[in-house]
Amino acid sequence: MKYYSYEDFRIDTKKLLSDVKEFKPEVIVGIARGGLTLTHALAEGLDIREVQTLRTELYDDTHKRETLSIFGDCDFGDKSRVLVVDDISDSGDTLKAVMLHLTSKHENIEFKSSTLFYKKTSVYEPDFWINEADDWIDFFWERDFKVD
Amino acid sequence: MKYYSYEDFRIDTKKLLSDVKEFKPEVIVGIARGGLTLTHALAEGLDIREVQTLRTELYDDTHKRETLSIFGDCDFGDKSRVLVVDDISDSGDTLKAVMLHLTSKHENIEFKSSTLFYKKTSVYEPDFWINEADDWIDFFWERDFKVD
Repeated sequence: MKYYSYEDFRIDTKKLLSDVKEFKPEVIVGIARGGLTLTHALAEGLDIREVQTLRTELYDDTHKRETLSIFGDCDFGDKSRVLVVDDISDSGDTLKAVMLHLTSKHENIEFKSSTLFYKKTSVYEPDFWINEADDWIDFFWERDFKVD
Repeated sequence: MKYYSYEDFRIDTKKLLSDVKEFKPEVIVGIARGGLTLTHALAEGLDIREVQTLRTELYDDTHKRETLSIFGDCDFGDKSRVLVVDDISDSGDTLKAVMLHLTSKHENIEFKSSTLFYKKTSVYEPDFWINEADDWIDFFWERDFKVD
């Protein structure tokens, strides 16, 4: 298990910013909870005020495999380029489902996805990612606020 | 202008967590953009997966004073205690409007608000806050991701 500190995050997010800015996103959709801190940092770095979030939940279905539900609705108005943000594409199930959900509901919008980490075994590869994950990542936001 | 570092944030958020946990919130509503990083940290510290966000915009109205618009809808299902999160209650206009908006739309839910900073001249005092702000706060998320 690798601790991913705020300092690591700051450096990687600046790298990610220099990649995603070419896409010229007008809106950011963050995936809660994991993507929230990165969403905030990218929104500040790109100077984007239009930030919306979606929340996903994995259900253990005893009959079949796990099913994913997506909560929240997005409204993009007259905008055309949307950046979807999560911390990691691990199994890839979350981002794959979210991108399918968004592209099917908003046909005239171009969506691109970005994460800090990508696992080679993921069923989905984000358009922008910084690090390959070969271990469990202990993100600072998961460790630093644990109440003792 | 005072730089507010991640280390300051970590310490203050742990203090805020020990205050807000008495309220036993079931859902967190974060105000974008300013409240997003704190929302993520509190959600992890309180082990709350139900995170939703609202976005506010201030319009300069040439005829009258500034007006505030609130974007996004919340759905609380059968939950009854909701924590609203922003970074600072500065003028207080944003939090005052958001709390009024939420309490009028969801009458059976108890809402409490929390921020890191509170300005004595604010028109609204959050239920939970940590520091009094007497200077402009330069939050790390506003400075650390500026593209050079």
